[in-house]
This record gives sequence, structure tokens and C-alpha cells, in this order.
Amino acid sequence: MTSLAVRYTAARTLTTGPAAPVPPGPGQVELAPAYVGICGTDLHIFHGDMDGRVKAPAVIGHEMSGHVVRVGPGVEGYAPGDPVTVMPLSWDGTCPACLNGHRHICQNLDFIGIDSPGAMQQRWTVPASTLIRLPESLALDRAALVEPTAVAVHDVGRAGVSDGDRVVVVGGGPVGLLIALVARASGGEVRVVEPNPQRRRLAEQLGLNTWDPGADDVPERVRDWTQDAGADIAFEVSGAEAGVQTAVDVLAVRGRLCLVAIHPRPRAVDLHRFFWRELTLIGARLYERQDFETAVRLIDEGTIPAEQLISRIVPLVDALDAFTSLESGGDVKVLVDCGNTSPEAAA
Amino acid sequence: MTSLAVRYTAARTLTTGPAAPVPPGPGQVELAPAYVGICGTDLHIFHGDMDGRVKAPAVIGHEMSGHVVRVGPGVEGYAPGDPVTVMPLSWDGTCPACLNGHRHICQNLDFIGIDSPGAMQQRWTVPASTLIRLPESLALDRAALVEPTAVAVHDVGRAGVSDGDRVVVVGGGPVGLLIALVARASGGEVRVVEPNPQRRRLAEQLGLNTWDPGADDVPERVRDWTQDAGADIAFEVSGAEAGVQTAVDVLAVRGRLCLVAIHPRPRAVDLHRFFWRELTLIGARLYERQDFETAVRLIDEGTIPAEQLISRIVPLVDALDAFTSLESGGDVKVLVDCGNTSPEAAA
Ligand SMILES: [Zn+2]
Ligand SMILES: [Zn+2]
Repeated sequence: MTSLAVRYTAARTLTTGPAAPVPPGPGQVELAPAYVGICGTDLHIFHGDMDGRVKAPAVIGHEMSGHVVRVGPGVEGYAPGDPVTVMPLSWDGTCPACLNGHRHICQNLDFIGIDSPGAMQQRWTVPASTLIRLPESLALDRAALVEPTAVAVHDVGRAGVSDGDRVVVVGGGPVGLLIALVARASGGEVRVVEPNPQRRRLAEQLGLNTWDPGADDVPERVRDWTQDAGADIAFEVSGAEAGVQTAVDVLAVRGRLCLVAIHPRPRAVDLHRFFWRELTLIGARLYERQDFETAVRLIDEGTIPAEQLISRIVPLVDALDAFTSLESGGDVKVLVDCGNTSPEAAA
Repeated sequence: MTSLAVRYTAARTLTTGPAAPVPPGPGQVELAPAYVGICGTDLHIFHGDMDGRVKAPAVIGHEMSGHVVRVGPGVEGYAPGDPVTVMPLSWDGTCPACLNGHRHICQNLDFIGIDSPGAMQQRWTVPASTLIRLPESLALDRAALVEPTAVAVHDVGRAGVSDGDRVVVVGGGPVGLLIALVARASGGEVRVVEPNPQRRRLAEQLGLNTWDPGADDVPERVRDWTQDAGADIAFEVSGAEAGVQTAVDVLAVRGRLCLVAIHPRPRAVDLHRFFWRELTLIGARLYERQDFETAVRLIDEGTIPAEQLISRIVPLVDALDAFTSLESGGDVKVLVDCGNTSPEAAA
């Protein structure tokens, strides 16, 4: 076959062209990606903000679903046609973080799709250790949301959401909405703070209550909602300094702030409130294997209505359009269809 | 008797004068303070920085040891002559924090010695619920350090220091040194970061290793010390923005920063590092009863060599001198002798 790949070639430029499939070596598997989601990090790369880390030309993309095409020597448990997704992490196993059991944030982590070639192509060869099996019942477009859902599962786990917790999610983009849904599934009562009206409308359609930080006095609303206690848990998913401030301001005594967003610059933080109320700030990055397995289950059983989060699906050749349209902020999740959606096409 | 009290009357002014003892009401106890320590908060009050909260004239002081003089109606378990210290907290018992079991940081906390009259006087009437019994074996000058030691016990407990943890204490004042000693007693390997050479010398005399942030590249030293892992736990006790930065910079993947110091203004915090390394920031304020009981034991058994932390003891009439001399930063802990040091004097 002629395999195609979308390559980041320079800031704001993507090029679709032929790519030679990489024969799977020992312990590797060749996949036929079906759908690849575009996330905030992909947009950062597209904008040229990560040129220090991503060397053009580079195939990006790491939120995917697909089928196994070929397995390399020594790979057991997988066969051509198996539906899978990928946990795109490769660790060294020898650094202090790995030795302490935190391999997913290895000090020398290779994030596949950023630090090495990604999924936005018709053939993708990855270590078999990254594979997560998908149930036959799970449609592959929905399965492309497993990776961001695994992020949300990890975040909710780090924050320790449990039955009856009152939870404020600051930022209602794809990850914020997924966190809100997973937190609700964990027994939390959830409010989403989001300035964009389209995103608020989608949140409401998902059955989530929302506040508009431009119109609502959010800390005041939280005091009313919680009888002056404050929220048990806040998630900072906005990436904005004002979002950090809101997340700190709404918390109850001994409340927990789970920091999910990327803040490229230092932020002014009200540390006195951390002291005064004995608050906790918890950084959360990526996921572990059990987070993926939980995410697969949540989407498969319908707890996470993944289909409602998918704004559009575009063919591989229109990837550039998908990236540019995402910048407008109206779309939530856009998938790229790699043209490999049936196991037959993949074989 | 003629009872004397030291009163904060205006910024940088203390006045010693007569005070009528307050007969203990139901559930109250009248004490004869023996020694009263001066802490950073007392200095803030002295500087006029807390005039919004402390209404002059006010008797301040909350680090104390002494004897029971009289017990009010309904008080059981205490008798005149009993040596005691005071956990100077009074909570409402009805706010959300109290109802969630966090009475020590009650949303309407009355901190005795700040929000109501303190210990720097010859007779002091307090709720019996605040009393902590002292063993006869514990000298009362050393016992005046129970309160700040309870702070350190609480902080070390919040941070979860355990055997083999590598711990960096940023700030080597009285609280920093006590944290370092308690962390060491909990099995931690400890380093103290302190710019003041007198304080570093005292830390070294206590058997603690120190770094001078003006001369040492502290994060580099920590990398060498920990074979590139970073510290498991850092305590921010400096109150300076640079101290926050150091505490964040030295931490290992999944490291914990326990925030102990007061930061009156928002601080620039490298939140990206919290995300990237999945760090945790833990606010810690005050103490609970078991922290006091642990502190009494640690001082009584000599694990905390309280006598080495006492720079000077001055009579009540010289309290003003003690406050002004503490500003130079040379002294660590200065005690005021209330002239009540024997149970006979107190009776
Ligand atoms: Zn590693
Ligand atoms: Zn209360």
C-alpha cells in the first residue's frame, strides 16, 4: 500500500505525503490508526511553540484508536486485526523517578507523538508495551477519546474525588469537561467555570452545571452552594493566572487544588490562603496504565458520552483545516480519520 | 498580690503595668505564667503590622509555661500548682471547618494571645480546655518551647516525613530549626538553608548540615546529595519568594513542599514544575492537641534540646528590650521571665 502521513514541517504548516511503513522490530507492533484526536499540545506544536523539542519534519498525534497490522518478533497476546489504543509513554526504567515507581513521569520520558513519531499517519510502529486492548463493542471514533479520558481519570484520582465531594472545574475545554464527567462518575457534585458560551452550552448538554466567570462572582456562588464551607476540590484546567486564583479562592479548609493545566510562566499564587486554610496543591501529569483501563471502561459503558465531545471528523488530507479551525475555540474535539477505519482496510 | 502585665500599646511600644487578675469562671483556670517566648507573630504585632486584628492596649504572648493558681467551677483534673502549658486556640465548634474535624483552623478561630489577651503577665485566665499538662521532670524554661515545637510536629506530620526521606528546610529561624530537629527525629536526613551565619552556626551546633544560599547553588547541592533524584520533602519557612523558588527547585518527582511561613503577598510560583514532576504543596498552620503532647515528650526526653535554642531570658520589665534586640536577628528564642517560676510564688 501507499501509506500517508501528516507532518509538521514549520510553524503553522502541515504537509501530507507518503511515508514508508516501519517494519516492526522485536517487541514492536505496526498499527493502522483509525482516528487521531487533536489536543492542546498538538496545537502548541503547530504554533511552533515547541520547536525546541519537536524537530520538523515530524509526525505528531498521540490520541488514537486503530488496529494491529503486524506484530514483531517476541510480541505475544496481540494479533493482526485487534482493536487497540496506545499509552504513548516510553520510560528509561533507570532514573530515580522510575526506580521510585513513577515511570509515567520518568525524568527522561519519551512521549511518543512529541519526542518520537506520532499517530497521524496510516501506519505507525510502536512498542507493544504501549498497547491497550479495546473491546469490540467500542466504536473506534469514541475510542480515540480514551487518551484524554485517561488524563481525566488520573487527575481525578490524584485529587481523590469521592462520594459527596463538591468539585469546581476551572476551564471547560475537552480536558475540563472530561474531568467534570469523571469526577461526577466518582460521586462528586460538579460545577464547571468557563467563559466561552459554546463550551458552557456543551457542558450543560452533558448535564453539568456551569458558571460564567465574566458574569458570576464564582467564589460567592461557591459559598452559597456550600453553605459557606467552600469546595472540597478544584481543578485548574484553564492555564490562566486568573483561573489559578479562582481555584484557590473557592476552596474549603483543607481543600485540594489539582493542577492539570500547563502554565508556561510562574503565576502569582496566594500562598497565605494555602497556609491559612491548610490547602493542598497537587500536580497531575499524564496517566498510568490503570487510568487507561478505567478510561476504556468509562467510555465503553457510556459513562463518558464520548460521541457528544466529538465536534467533527475530517479526513487525513484536511488535517491542516482541522488545526486552524480549532484555534477559533468553538470545536471541542476534532478527530482526523486516517482512512483505516475497518480491520479489512488495515490488513 | 500586685499582678503585672506587658501591654502592646502602639507600634513599637510596650508598657508594663498593673493588671487585675481575672477570677476563673466556669470551665476556666487562672494560671501563673513562668516563661513566655517571643515569636515572629509577636514581632509583627509589635511592629504594628497587625493593628487591624490586635486592638491596643493588648496583652500578647502565647508560647508559655506555668502553674495552675486557681480552677473555676466545673474544672476537673487540674489543681493549684500543676505545671502546664496552653494550646492557645478557641474554636466555635459550629463552622464547616469544625464540623469537618478541623477545629484547629476553625473559620472563626480565636487565637489566644492575638485575638484575646495573652500570656505576658503574672496572672492569666484561660479555658481549661486549652491546658496541656507538663511532666514534673520538664524545666519550665524548656517547656516554654512546647508551643513552637508543636508547630514543627504538626508541619512534619502534614509533610509526612518518614524513615530515609531527604528533607530540605528553607529558613533556619526558630521554627525552621525545630522542624529540622523533628524531621530528623522522624527519620529524615535533613539540610537547612539559611543565609544568616549565626543561625547556621547554631544549626551546626545542633548537628544539622547547612547550606548558605548566598554561596551555595542549593539545587545543585541537592542533586549531588540525592544522586540527581531531588529531595523528597522541602519546608518553606523563610517567608521569602526566593525561598519558595528554592523549595520548589530542589524537589524530586512526586516531592512534597510543606508551606509553613507567612507570605503576606502573592508569590510567583513555578506551577509548571508542580505539573511536570507531580509535586504537592501542603499548607500547614498551627497544631492539634496530639502535636502538643508529642512536643512535650520530645522536649522532655531531650530529642529537642530546647535549652540550646534559648538565647536569653529577660525579666518582664525588660520585655521591650527583648523585642527590639530580636529585630537584629542574632537571637533565636528569647523568653520573658514573669517572676512566677516556683509553684510557691504562683500559689
Ligand atoms: Zn525514568
Ligand atoms: Zn469553627
